[in-house]
Amino acid sequence: MNSMETPHGWVVDVSVPPASIQDNTGDRERLFSALARADGQPPAAMDHRALAALPAALREKDGRVRCMLVPHASGYAVADVFSAASPPPCLGLAVDLGTTRIVARLADLFSHQVLGEAATDNPQAAIGPDVLARIHHADAHEDGLAELQRLAAGAVARLGRDLAEEAGRAAEDIRLVSLAGNTAMTHLFLGLPPRWIIREPYIPPANAPDPVEASALSLPFAPGCRVYVHPNVGSYFGGDLMAGIRHLGLHRGTRLQLLVDVGTNAEVVLGNAEFLIACAGAAGPALEGGVTRMGVTARPGAIDRVRIDPVTGEFILHTIGDRPAVGICGSGVIDLAAWLYLTGRLDERGKFVAHALGGRLTEDGQGVPAVVVATAKESATGEPLLFSQADMDSLTRSKAAMYTILCTLADSVGVEFEDIAAIHVAGTFGSFIDPESAITIGMIPDLPLSVYQAAGNTSLQGAASLLFSRRAPAETREIRDRVTYLELNVNQEFMTRFSAAKFYPHTDASRFPAALARKRAVAGRRQMLKVEE
Amino acid sequence: MNSMETPHGWVVDVSVPPASIQDNTGDRERLFSALARADGQPPAAMDHRALAALPAALREKDGRVRCMLVPHASGYAVADVFSAASPPPCLGLAVDLGTTRIVARLADLFSHQVLGEAATDNPQAAIGPDVLARIHHADAHEDGLAELQRLAAGAVARLGRDLAEEAGRAAEDIRLVSLAGNTAMTHLFLGLPPRWIIREPYIPPANAPDPVEASALSLPFAPGCRVYVHPNVGSYFGGDLMAGIRHLGLHRGTRLQLLVDVGTNAEVVLGNAEFLIACAGAAGPALEGGVTRMGVTARPGAIDRVRIDPVTGEFILHTIGDRPAVGICGSGVIDLAAWLYLTGRLDERGKFVAHALGGRLTEDGQGVPAVVVATAKESATGEPLLFSQADMDSLTRSKAAMYTILCTLADSVGVEFEDIAAIHVAGTFGSFIDPESAITIGMIPDLPLSVYQAAGNTSLQGAASLLFSRRAPAETREIRDRVTYLELNVNQEFMTRFSAAKFYPHTDASRFPAALARKRAVAGRRQMLKVEE
Repeated sequence: MNSMETPHGWVVDVSVPPASIQDNTGDRERLFSALARADGQPPAAMDHRALAALPAALREKDGRVRCMLVPHASGYAVADVFSAASPPPCLGLAVDLGTTRIVARLADLFSHQVLGEAATDNPQAAIGPDVLARIHHADAHEDGLAELQRLAAGAVARLGRDLAEEAGRAAEDIRLVSLAGNTAMTHLFLGLPPRWIIREPYIPPANAPDPVEASALSLPFAPGCRVYVHPNVGSYFGGDLMAGIRHLGLHRGTRLQLLVDVGTNAEVVLGNAEFLIACAGAAGPALEGGVTRMGVTARPGAIDRVRIDPVTGEFILHTIGDRPAVGICGSGVIDLAAWLYLTGRLDERGKFVAHALGGRLTEDGQGVPAVVVATAKESATGEPLLFSQADMDSLTRSKAAMYTILCTLADSVGVEFEDIAAIHVAGTFGSFIDPESAITIGMIPDLPLSVYQAAGNTSLQGAASLLFSRRAPAETREIRDRVTYLELNVNQEFMTRFSAAKFYPHTDASRFPAALARKRAVAGRRQMLKVEE
Repeated sequence: MNSMETPHGWVVDVSVPPASIQDNTGDRERLFSALARADGQPPAAMDHRALAALPAALREKDGRVRCMLVPHASGYAVADVFSAASPPPCLGLAVDLGTTRIVARLADLFSHQVLGEAATDNPQAAIGPDVLARIHHADAHEDGLAELQRLAAGAVARLGRDLAEEAGRAAEDIRLVSLAGNTAMTHLFLGLPPRWIIREPYIPPANAPDPVEASALSLPFAPGCRVYVHPNVGSYFGGDLMAGIRHLGLHRGTRLQLLVDVGTNAEVVLGNAEFLIACAGAAGPALEGGVTRMGVTARPGAIDRVRIDPVTGEFILHTIGDRPAVGICGSGVIDLAAWLYLTGRLDERGKFVAHALGGRLTEDGQGVPAVVVATAKESATGEPLLFSQADMDSLTRSKAAMYTILCTLADSVGVEFEDIAAIHVAGTFGSFIDPESAITIGMIPDLPLSVYQAAGNTSLQGAASLLFSRRAPAETREIRDRVTYLELNVNQEFMTRFSAAKFYPHTDASRFPAALARKRAVAGRRQMLKVEE
């Protein structure tokens, strides 16, 4: 693998032919020719630091030099040149910059060895839990944007330093950062004014920001270290998706594939080698931690699986790390809704059925009906964990939005759901969703379960693979340019479809034969057992 | 002129169409499209500072922005963006970086108004008088290169600041520096190791260094200010010549033209729209100040014109500024040799004729025969100014080298001197040379005097015109790529020709009919007057 991939990586060993008195071409120009032969195109530029180091490096080992190449708006640039006799380590840091979590992976750019992975909460959460709150903060305070920039960069700097130290390396050897995130997060990270991202007509300052020196972002990595930020298609379809599409190869496939990233926004792209069509819509806050009263991110103590015994009505909970329950995360919410519905505790309009819930039904502090998900005994706080009708209504909107987005997207290119060979469910909590539950509540199409694939953190995967591929930025740019973005805000059918999708599983129940069969089976079991009683 | 040239200048006003909800292209990408429409090609890159300023600037005056563009290795880059409502001044500094003198010109990049010009001695002279001494210093001392870099940059910084202040502007508004100089000087200025420039096979670190941020060179100009350094053809044919060729339009002419820059090195280029051929050779130190005992640069008190009365033998001297003589500069040395030869005081081998010199002949401190050029009375020091046989031998080698270079160059492309429509004599002291004297001693071809044109400081002129032309870097690069450099060190005929050219005016005197006629005329006058006596 090494011998195959190194020629296309960012760390390149080249042999520069010596000059002669007949051909007294400069060192820089001979290096450019050698790189053009190796790459197919010459560098777009060379850093001053690299040029200053070149003459001595060239003459140390018969013209053999190691070049640290970096992405450039037009092609690639030479950031550093070392003698092949004593090249220093060249490390790369891949970053998935999420609104809630920041995940980073450290790798050796020459050997392509992965050196470690770590994550941390996005410290911007101290300013505001979501994108909107942070953008308002950047707008409202003179130093607001700089403050948010420092927080994000500080977290990335710490992740880089900690990972380097754990691997016995130095942060000063990190020479390339490949970062993917949503459009708002990447703009805040770059210190670019985010004000217009959330205001009609929703224009980001940059679709494809130029690679920028790490020092300009106060990242304490190697001199000349570049930060490549994956480009976005618009304010609501970010570079995290571009990284994901490249990672999954949607743009190269002959089969039709779909990538869905579920969060506050549902971001979806459908395509193959012929087309890529994308859209994003507010899926509502029901699936993200910190929004519903008891909602939490997927962390120890989060309820991530729920079953309800059809006969006893017992709630069977699973928490991450088998710890006392501290709240419920996205996958748990979907499971909860699915099993409330399957067991007749939630009606087709998404409302709690009081007589079926019995003692599980109570009221929250505002007098709103609420289900006791975890009893006081099961909870870490000693208080019961409640999921209110308001929380459920929020989920109903979310699942309806998701299904409507998928319908609209498929319809726009005239394909049936059955034509889709694979649906990759991405995002930090996407991996934990039980597709069967999601189908049951009508959130995603009623397709064979094998179609659904947990894709994991495709943003990080894509960002990480760029560290080993000099072709990846151009490929990403091609993906970006090929994506047709479907604007839902101007889609008139959307609201009609959305209303129909707010039912469980849908007003047109024939779309969900498996969900209905399942409900019948559960009801049958209950009935059967009742008869046995 | 303004309305004609501004579209091709570095300061460009563009109107960026607003985005819409149907076309939510980012601010950066809409600016790039607008610039591509205006220029024919999009920018190669955009500075982070410019991107951060763009969104607000775009929305201040209906998308009308002023862009500060700068040269980039591949095309041009956007260094800054201002609202058209309140753009700051954009100044440019052109610099001719000479081994001895540094000359700078300040201009307004938008109005194309020239704001001032100033010169200063190159402070690197404190390290060493010539290129060789300075390169040895850079080699021999750990901080040597950095020290030389600081000295040159410091002088450029002071010139920029002083010129800005005199014009009522600020150095912080200087956003583009266009610099031309010989290969060694530009490398020292850029802090690039010069060691290999003077060692076989004489390879410079860069033929065409990338434009570099002024801050990287410790120039205290505007943030993002770029320094464009004219590219060289090799160690001995520098960017000052490239600027000169572009300024004079040699590369565009239908007629054949020649540019000659005389100094320690004689640098010559001959060409037209079809070809450009160049060579350079050591012309010897005779023509540069500080090398012959009494040699000085062209400064107040320097003897710049010499005549000898054919009858009385009186030396008629002219000094710059009509001040008491402090030494003799290049043009004075050529005049002196010509008149010593014309009046029979110098023989065809370039040796003093003792009986003809009479009381003007003395000895220098080493017992070498020497001519009293200025008497003790005429000199500023109260001591007579002497020009020794050793100094004269040095001049003989210089003039022979110059003529041989010109012959070799013309011969290499099969043209006769008579085919050359114009010979531009450039360089700080080139302007002062009397072509008649130079022809008389056989330094330059015996052509009609109208062929010789004092070109002034073509390096500065070329550097200055780049400040107003976005096309100039590409044109300069084309010139550079087109120049065929003739290496004299490997030219076997050179030494034979050189020996023949050491005679006055030449062993083949038929090449210099006008010089011989002049000598006969002077001898005739002397004879005539003698007869009258």
